[in-house]
Amino acid sequence: MAERLDVDLGDRAYPIFVGEDLLTDTTRFAPYIDGQQVFVVTSEIVAPLYLDALRDTLSGFDLDVCIISDGERNKTLATYLKVIDELMTRRHNRTTTLVALGGGVVGDITGFVAATYQRGVAFLQVPTTLLAQVDSSVGGKTGVNHPGGKNMIGAFHQPRCVVADTSVLGSLPRREYLAGIAEIIKYGVIRDAEFFAWLEANLAVLLDQQPAALVYAIGRSCAIKAEIVQADEREAGERAVLNFGHSFGHALETLTRYETYLHGEAVAIGMVMAADLSVRAGWMSRVDARRIRDLIEAAGLPVRVAGDIATEQMLQTMGMDKKVVDGKLRLVLSRAIGCAEVTDEVAESMLRATLGSGDSLCG
Amino acid sequence: MAERLDVDLGDRAYPIFVGEDLLTDTTRFAPYIDGQQVFVVTSEIVAPLYLDALRDTLSGFDLDVCIISDGERNKTLATYLKVIDELMTRRHNRTTTLVALGGGVVGDITGFVAATYQRGVAFLQVPTTLLAQVDSSVGGKTGVNHPGGKNMIGAFHQPRCVVADTSVLGSLPRREYLAGIAEIIKYGVIRDAEFFAWLEANLAVLLDQQPAALVYAIGRSCAIKAEIVQADEREAGERAVLNFGHSFGHALETLTRYETYLHGEAVAIGMVMAADLSVRAGWMSRVDARRIRDLIEAAGLPVRVAGDIATEQMLQTMGMDKKVVDGKLRLVLSRAIGCAEVTDEVAESMLRATLGSGDSLCG
Repeated sequence: MAERLDVDLGDRAYPIFVGEDLLTDTTRFAPYIDGQQVFVVTSEIVAPLYLDALRDTLSGFDLDVCIISDGERNKTLATYLKVIDELMTRRHNRTTTLVALGGGVVGDITGFVAATYQRGVAFLQVPTTLLAQVDSSVGGKTGVNHPGGKNMIGAFHQPRCVVADTSVLGSLPRREYLAGIAEIIKYGVIRDAEFFAWLEANLAVLLDQQPAALVYAIGRSCAIKAEIVQADEREAGERAVLNFGHSFGHALETLTRYETYLHGEAVAIGMVMAADLSVRAGWMSRVDARRIRDLIEAAGLPVRVAGDIATEQMLQTMGMDKKVVDGKLRLVLSRAIGCAEVTDEVAESMLRATLGSGDSLCG
Repeated sequence: MAERLDVDLGDRAYPIFVGEDLLTDTTRFAPYIDGQQVFVVTSEIVAPLYLDALRDTLSGFDLDVCIISDGERNKTLATYLKVIDELMTRRHNRTTTLVALGGGVVGDITGFVAATYQRGVAFLQVPTTLLAQVDSSVGGKTGVNHPGGKNMIGAFHQPRCVVADTSVLGSLPRREYLAGIAEIIKYGVIRDAEFFAWLEANLAVLLDQQPAALVYAIGRSCAIKAEIVQADEREAGERAVLNFGHSFGHALETLTRYETYLHGEAVAIGMVMAADLSVRAGWMSRVDARRIRDLIEAAGLPVRVAGDIATEQMLQTMGMDKKVVDGKLRLVLSRAIGCAEVTDEVAESMLRATLGSGDSLCG
């Protein structure tokens, strides 16, 4: 009883399965593995919880495992190279299939290894955090961080399938679960007012991890992401709306060295900033901005920066973000809940006002 | 008066220009650069010779330059990271265009940087060695070496155009020029008996670098490569015929630590081995094998290993090559001059005989 969604990318098309107890369902894996070699990449945190179950499910294959350290600060070229070294040592060839069992960091690194090992091998995404299930496991963005910026090294490489088992979310720390909710809220803001309203009405059951609500919310999020990725796989334009709140969020993460905020928390604050800026730019009503802020806050997520981050530092950091095109800062703003657009016509003065004021226009 | 060939890869299609004095012809570059930022990667050897000319040609752009150390032993993740660091420092964004000015090492590293910097930016190939002009600059293979094997880390990433200026070959050391001839001979062997015969008849003028002969030979080589790449961009099957002689050649390079042979020289020996094995397998006549060996020798290229390389070491090293699929060694053999095929049905005993005997069946 899993929901199946299809990401339609021609010869790179793939299914996303969302449902309970999928990790032990071999039919979700075997059809997407061509050769005999399988190489599971997972983390020190996830391995003790779910590696044995996955081993059983994949018992028909020649399985090797590489366990990496989790956390954004380990999403580096050094960790990438550790996985590559292990693939070489275990003599995996071009027909091997990598399986990313873990959160966004595991998925991004594994995907980048798959994109570049022997110029590209197959991989499966088995996201174990809510954030990874609704965001990073779908769409083919892979990569690692550079000391100068997040995801500066990477590739587009689509998985063969995504297996989002909602049962594993029970073991997720509360804070990480909520961080995933932030990205779910984002999908409502950028593309689907009805879904946003559903989230307002059903927040309690969702926070309670009620299975049906969870499968619906993850499925709807993946469907929106798939739709946007299909239209613009390599982010030439429209796909950038997925970055709503992220220019701010990435800068916050960089300035706090990935120590203060989980990615979803930084995005939560970033979305409130983006809503504030949307109001200042005359794009969005204060009513909608307030609904966004209220839903984020009701989900137990931060809506403003804790402590001081200087406006100049934020501007500087955002300037080195990938979203800069020929000197102009590209940002995603929202016209109204359900409707986001990329723009490079935001006056620096407005951006300064937003950065200086926190969430004042959303309150 | 440049020859233009088109590599037809749908939305990744691009032209190859072959001719004299193209480096100073801005019309070969400007139409293929979208933004204002251009980042030239070149080597310590090539920079003093041609960088100023290219700077003049690209004077309408914001130009940064990164000079790397040349040579196969520098084709590493460390050199790759040096280029990435420089792009970050100079704040190049996603609309930047990289230009690879140099031989195969510069082209492969620059291409891999372009494939992965900010998940992929544009790049132009300006090959300055004969080998790079007829082989590595065309087809989108990019990458770096891993201590355990050549090109183990990389990606398929097509350039926006290839500018093969034959005038620059005059400054190429004789040995490197001849190494390029080896790959030209390969195209005759794998795909074009008529071209092979032309090479036999015109070897003297080609070795003399007579311009018309050079443009013809490079153009024909690129056309054959383009045709094969179009049919199988990501080397799922047929493209592997381009590796004729390369399984042997790569193993020789690895075992001699890239110190004894230039790539083309290793391929020259490898092609004689592949011809020998083709005869042993009952695929090729001794007459054809002898013509291959004779042409290679007449071009001043090596036809056998200098000194001792143990058969077991060769087998072991070839076993870790990318051409291994599920435990079977895939090799490219030739039915006759002009006709090569991929096979995984070579008996180990025959391979041992070839490795043990050098070039005996071609003599």
